[in-house]
Amino acid sequence: MTTIGILGGGQLARMLALAAYPLGFKIKCCDPVKNTCAYDVADVSLIAWDNSQQIKSFIDSVDVITFETENVPVDFLKTVLVGKPHFPSLDALKIAQDRLFEKQLFAELNIKTAPYFVVNDEKDLKQGIEKIGFPCVLKTRRFGYDGKGQAILRHAEDAKNSWSDFMGKACLLEGFVAFDGECSLIAARDRQNHIVFYPLAHNRHEQGILIESRAPWDHGVLNIKAQACMTGLLQKLDYVGVCTIEFFYCGDELIVNEMAPRVHNSGHWSIEGALTSQFANHIRAITDLPLGDTAPIGHSYMYNGISKMPDKKQILNISGAYYHDYAKVPRPGRKIGHITLNASTGSQLEEKIAALLLHIPD
Amino acid sequence: MTTIGILGGGQLARMLALAAYPLGFKIKCCDPVKNTCAYDVADVSLIAWDNSQQIKSFIDSVDVITFETENVPVDFLKTVLVGKPHFPSLDALKIAQDRLFEKQLFAELNIKTAPYFVVNDEKDLKQGIEKIGFPCVLKTRRFGYDGKGQAILRHAEDAKNSWSDFMGKACLLEGFVAFDGECSLIAARDRQNHIVFYPLAHNRHEQGILIESRAPWDHGVLNIKAQACMTGLLQKLDYVGVCTIEFFYCGDELIVNEMAPRVHNSGHWSIEGALTSQFANHIRAITDLPLGDTAPIGHSYMYNGISKMPDKKQILNISGAYYHDYAKVPRPGRKIGHITLNASTGSQLEEKIAALLLHIPD
Repeated sequence: MTTIGILGGGQLARMLALAAYPLGFKIKCCDPVKNTCAYDVADVSLIAWDNSQQIKSFIDSVDVITFETENVPVDFLKTVLVGKPHFPSLDALKIAQDRLFEKQLFAELNIKTAPYFVVNDEKDLKQGIEKIGFPCVLKTRRFGYDGKGQAILRHAEDAKNSWSDFMGKACLLEGFVAFDGECSLIAARDRQNHIVFYPLAHNRHEQGILIESRAPWDHGVLNIKAQACMTGLLQKLDYVGVCTIEFFYCGDELIVNEMAPRVHNSGHWSIEGALTSQFANHIRAITDLPLGDTAPIGHSYMYNGISKMPDKKQILNISGAYYHDYAKVPRPGRKIGHITLNASTGSQLEEKIAALLLHIPD
Repeated sequence: MTTIGILGGGQLARMLALAAYPLGFKIKCCDPVKNTCAYDVADVSLIAWDNSQQIKSFIDSVDVITFETENVPVDFLKTVLVGKPHFPSLDALKIAQDRLFEKQLFAELNIKTAPYFVVNDEKDLKQGIEKIGFPCVLKTRRFGYDGKGQAILRHAEDAKNSWSDFMGKACLLEGFVAFDGECSLIAARDRQNHIVFYPLAHNRHEQGILIESRAPWDHGVLNIKAQACMTGLLQKLDYVGVCTIEFFYCGDELIVNEMAPRVHNSGHWSIEGALTSQFANHIRAITDLPLGDTAPIGHSYMYNGISKMPDKKQILNISGAYYHDYAKVPRPGRKIGHITLNASTGSQLEEKIAALLLHIPD
């Protein structure tokens, strides 16, 4: 029996494991943090990803490796993963963990991003602001997630504070995109270059954290453009597995915000809302199985539980509601679960959303 | 966090666990057999169910108890489960583990079964045959499953051989039902007497083992009759959880074959083919959560892998195919997995079934 090794043991690993078991795979995770939330559902080892001996023995104990996060020590892993199948490639992770590399790749692919300026010191920051103008967004090149490592700059004072907050880390200064909204495209590519696309999800963030997604978001033009971006990216990287691109849109124009070389929060609705979930398709892709149908089942809405979740009983009283508790200790700003609503029609979905919102804790 | 304890660690426990995790529950199983197939996905202890000390400490370590099989030592468990919530009741299990008790209960509820005669010795057997006539079916009262413990008797020689095969165990002799076909109804009842019904499944057995189920089986009259039987049964037993009744049908007439006080093989299609699976609804019922919508998603077909499974890659090449591998060691007559096909229309489903059947190993 094939054992899949996952670097990471958080909620993405947890949901990957739950999708892998029916297909008959064993799951082992390794995570440098104790008692992560995949612990209840899989064999999770406490391993620092750069601990050569421990990571080697973890790799030896599995048949194929995948990742729940791009923030792994890529150069080190290149030396220990020789000869062990691993998807996506470390090169894809390396690009996705650095905003500059992402921007450069998208430029190569003729895909539009926000204008940017590389900031390594205060002089660069000043020059960047002169070039891009206020408002603009200072982002650390690496390790940013859920709004961490980014700040909107509206005047010189902001620039000074943020630079000091980020402790002089390598940054990009990006032009502020006055977008109409945000959406994301999730796709899976198998080893034979078959690509399947999920429908576009329409997303809303608050303070950089994804709050809600609706899918399918039925926007023909943007969907075609997004699929073209995705196809270029996947083929350029010879990518295997599930990949996500987050976009801003203004009218019919798409601007890439960032990519995630993995299953993504904006695709959690697919567990109940698509014929094959993003998790099942990632597992299929990395184990060389045919990809499953990504067609939506009716209309779905996903609500993220940030630091608290609404009452389980009240939520499950809503017909078509699904409750996902990650078994995590709540902390401010921490995603501890999500809820999916599913309905046959868009208007029924909006009724269910209204019912859900009555139960959101303050 | 609530921990659910399951007596049993086979594929039903495995699928219950996979349905319980998203809802935020922990799962512990206990099974007297080593390395059962829930082992990969849950905390499974090797415990003989009548080992007083071990079973008590297992019960102490969980918040609510349920069962993947009716064949548990009911009288012993009654003494150790005092004060610990457990669903369904041990009385329901006690009835379901003995064909005579089942028949008596159905008679009380005015639900039609095959005619029967209680057989404790060879004299009874002779009398029973005189009364019921050939062909008839000799069945052990207890521990029969997948066609084990039953034999069709067509003449006196069969009777002699079967009685000797069953080693004089307490039996029922049943009239042979010349049925048109077989179907089953699965329902869930919560602690507030809400009942939800899955659509009827149309089933086909070979040598007593379920081979395939199709759902929804759209037979209005039989559906109404089956729901009436189920409602009577659930209310009589004050039943909480998922319950199954298997029927023979002749035209518009239903004859109860047997009940199963648990999730059932003929409901496995509901994982992908219903808005809420039988496993999720059982977990909801026993943890006092509202029951989920049982409406079907299109049309589903389930094929059981008996001792072998078709090739995973070939099967997953069929759009709308889902592969469930229980991670069991194959043995003759052993269920080691199942495949579900899902399609928007009945005729599309038949096309997919034809494609599946091409890949069934001899």
